[in-house]
Amino acid sequence: MADTYDVIIIGAGPGGYVAAIRAAQLGMKTAVVDREHLGGICLNWGCIPTKALLRSAEIFHYMSHAGDYGLSAQGVSFDIGAVVKRSRGVSGRLNGGVGMLLKKNKVDVIWGEGSIAKAGEVTVKPATKSVEGPPVPAPKGALGPGTYKAKHVIVATGARPRALPGIEPDRKLIWTYFEAMVPKEMPKSLLVMGSGAIGIEFASFYRTMGAEVTVVEVMPQILPVEDAEIAAMARKRFEKQGIKILTSAKVTKVEKGANDVTATIETDKGTQQITADKLISAVGVVGNVEGLGLEALGVKMERGVVATDGLGRTNVPGIYAIGDVAGPPMLAHKAEHEGVICVETIAGMHAHPMDKGMIPGCTYCHPQVASVGLTEAKAKEQGLSVKVGRFPFAGNGKAIALGEPEGMVKTIFDAETGKLLGAHMIGAEVTELIQGYVVAMNLETTEEELMHTVFPHPTLSEMMHESVLDAYGRVIHT
Amino acid sequence: MADTYDVIIIGAGPGGYVAAIRAAQLGMKTAVVDREHLGGICLNWGCIPTKALLRSAEIFHYMSHAGDYGLSAQGVSFDIGAVVKRSRGVSGRLNGGVGMLLKKNKVDVIWGEGSIAKAGEVTVKPATKSVEGPPVPAPKGALGPGTYKAKHVIVATGARPRALPGIEPDRKLIWTYFEAMVPKEMPKSLLVMGSGAIGIEFASFYRTMGAEVTVVEVMPQILPVEDAEIAAMARKRFEKQGIKILTSAKVTKVEKGANDVTATIETDKGTQQITADKLISAVGVVGNVEGLGLEALGVKMERGVVATDGLGRTNVPGIYAIGDVAGPPMLAHKAEHEGVICVETIAGMHAHPMDKGMIPGCTYCHPQVASVGLTEAKAKEQGLSVKVGRFPFAGNGKAIALGEPEGMVKTIFDAETGKLLGAHMIGAEVTELIQGYVVAMNLETTEEELMHTVFPHPTLSEMMHESVLDAYGRVIHT
Repeated sequence: MADTYDVIIIGAGPGGYVAAIRAAQLGMKTAVVDREHLGGICLNWGCIPTKALLRSAEIFHYMSHAGDYGLSAQGVSFDIGAVVKRSRGVSGRLNGGVGMLLKKNKVDVIWGEGSIAKAGEVTVKPATKSVEGPPVPAPKGALGPGTYKAKHVIVATGARPRALPGIEPDRKLIWTYFEAMVPKEMPKSLLVMGSGAIGIEFASFYRTMGAEVTVVEVMPQILPVEDAEIAAMARKRFEKQGIKILTSAKVTKVEKGANDVTATIETDKGTQQITADKLISAVGVVGNVEGLGLEALGVKMERGVVATDGLGRTNVPGIYAIGDVAGPPMLAHKAEHEGVICVETIAGMHAHPMDKGMIPGCTYCHPQVASVGLTEAKAKEQGLSVKVGRFPFAGNGKAIALGEPEGMVKTIFDAETGKLLGAHMIGAEVTELIQGYVVAMNLETTEEELMHTVFPHPTLSEMMHESVLDAYGRVIHT
Repeated sequence: MADTYDVIIIGAGPGGYVAAIRAAQLGMKTAVVDREHLGGICLNWGCIPTKALLRSAEIFHYMSHAGDYGLSAQGVSFDIGAVVKRSRGVSGRLNGGVGMLLKKNKVDVIWGEGSIAKAGEVTVKPATKSVEGPPVPAPKGALGPGTYKAKHVIVATGARPRALPGIEPDRKLIWTYFEAMVPKEMPKSLLVMGSGAIGIEFASFYRTMGAEVTVVEVMPQILPVEDAEIAAMARKRFEKQGIKILTSAKVTKVEKGANDVTATIETDKGTQQITADKLISAVGVVGNVEGLGLEALGVKMERGVVATDGLGRTNVPGIYAIGDVAGPPMLAHKAEHEGVICVETIAGMHAHPMDKGMIPGCTYCHPQVASVGLTEAKAKEQGLSVKVGRFPFAGNGKAIALGEPEGMVKTIFDAETGKLLGAHMIGAEVTELIQGYVVAMNLETTEEELMHTVFPHPTLSEMMHESVLDAYGRVIHT
């Protein structure tokens, strides 16, 4: 029997491994349990490999429009196998990196399926399967199945794709993000169910690479969590690229053929059928709360996820939860930050609870979408009187020089206090730009300070300034 | 004789036209005088057209490395005429845009060479030449030469390339940025004198397009205003790309041949000669203070530029100066902000003087360089005790996914107060990232707030967080 750990974390995704490293930094004896992959879904089957695919698509797009830049080439094409291989290579490299970081920080890795037998004790059994089928061999130096003692156990088991009845993924014709990320050949046509970040990113990737893509969204707007104006602009751009979009639309039936699927879709305009080579089911994720022993321990659940206070504590002393399994927003950066806060709390530090209203969200379609804080509709729902600023990419010199004149920066201020309530962006590089507003919100900025801030020229970021000016009738470049 | 203007601004560059629009917003009767181009050097021969050239180079670079992304093409090439034409088109579009903005804001444009005959009176004479030779015809609706009265006159005449004795630009073999921006054919080899932003951007552009490039810098480091560590990293990257760099090196003599120039260069290792098709002189700029009547009016000068207080006022009531002609940093965004402050001061508003320590600087080479605030060396010179954080692009998932693993984010904090003193970045998209630190500095941030800020994943901007963590021994991903 090994020594008692200060902390064992079940799940080595972005929440888990970051929490483990922070715990080790704080001098705690720490282990992390995983059954399949260091870095979790995010690094192996999510954020990272999709960004690699989208990078190939981005450059393929440039190459296909070389003449726009005074350039030329013949026979512009892609090898989907090579594109996927590059993406897997990126994940592999980072996966290895997480292993090295854990080792460097003296965090033990325990390989297998973890569950909590009782408070203070984690049982690890051999995993029986993986995303790709057979169990993944343990990384070098990992500890094996067994019973491990820990003063504190953090559940960081993440989430998995939600499956709708009758439309269960079969890995062949009905895909989730797992299969969509490693196509063996390019589907000629694709039906994407769900227009959240995952659905839209795949729609964007496959459309850029030439597939016929239809997106079906049950809500009245695509990208349902985004500001309506931004979502409408995104929709217009996607449709211009040839993506077919159905909103307020429900897939009621899916029939599988030998090599295609036919979906029956109900909209307020009637019922239609669409046949496509593949269907990607991207209708959200559900927390991995099962098989961990949480129910027996009396850990409180809420809406299918583990209930926690703002510091990662569940109702059961010694048991914590962070990341997707602890509820929305189900984003890697939220998980990481929650992990740090949780571990600092365990260490007796005075951590600040996370303000979920200041967590940015990014979608890496073309054009990109990024936001933080309240949408205009949400602000008004809360009874706030708002000032709204807008600035179009077409008014920005760098955007024109880049050949990226499509997009908008929208800012929402409290009309009474001048507080920045939300920022919403669509266009080139906005996933990298949004952080400036996130910093501003964390520092409780008002319009005054943002107006006095000198943004560098020529950059896209100047639009962040202009949007603020516009909210107060002072915009220069429109 | 026209009515008296509230404000006449001499020079329609980024300082001048932005000041004009702001003045009009504040209800002032405003005119702007220019002899050649709305938008000034920045928009017509500087920031903007170079960004367009560099965009073509960026995409040419991607295309030349298509295989890295799983893509392929044959015969990747460029048409320098088309690349230049695109760049001129971008400037032309924005130039037209400035004209429309001025019109929309009811700012009069007066076409010609402006000077101040006496306080309150601007004399405008026909221009006799332009960058490209003959005078540029007046834009539609512009007023002509004559005498105009104004309560307040703002000098915003900008700057021009510095010419070194014996190495005067001749437009054929010895270029300034004017000629370097519109090459009729690609030089096979190029000597760049000066490694500030302008020199380095041209070196980067021409090298990417295939020219043999040598950069000669009189100071011990390239990009002399940047942090030494960042500059050293930039140098390494440029040398890897095949740019030859000589520092602590002085061009002492230039001999012109029929189709090339031979420069004699002295370094501490001895004297050498380099022959190249063209020489680009990029040894800084000098303020356009002449011919304006400033001396006769007793306007105080300092180190070759107009002396002003922090609000744009000269020592002579009613005469103001903004932008390059009012001194360094000679950057468009500084000029714009100075213009706004100056006009607001004229309007009797309580404008905050600009803090020149918070003006970011960007160089759009590959990799890009961006910074704000104090370098490590400058902070130490001021006797400050510092904490320095560093984070490498190689530790960032998005950077790996993009295929951009080269670069670093460096942050400098006051060890006593935790105040963010400076931030220095090299790598992909840093010109767009730096604004987050600029916002932070304007909001007087300390490391604490930046640590609590949740940066979105996966983005390059996460490195901005990690660099802060590193300064305090809390970095996760290295």
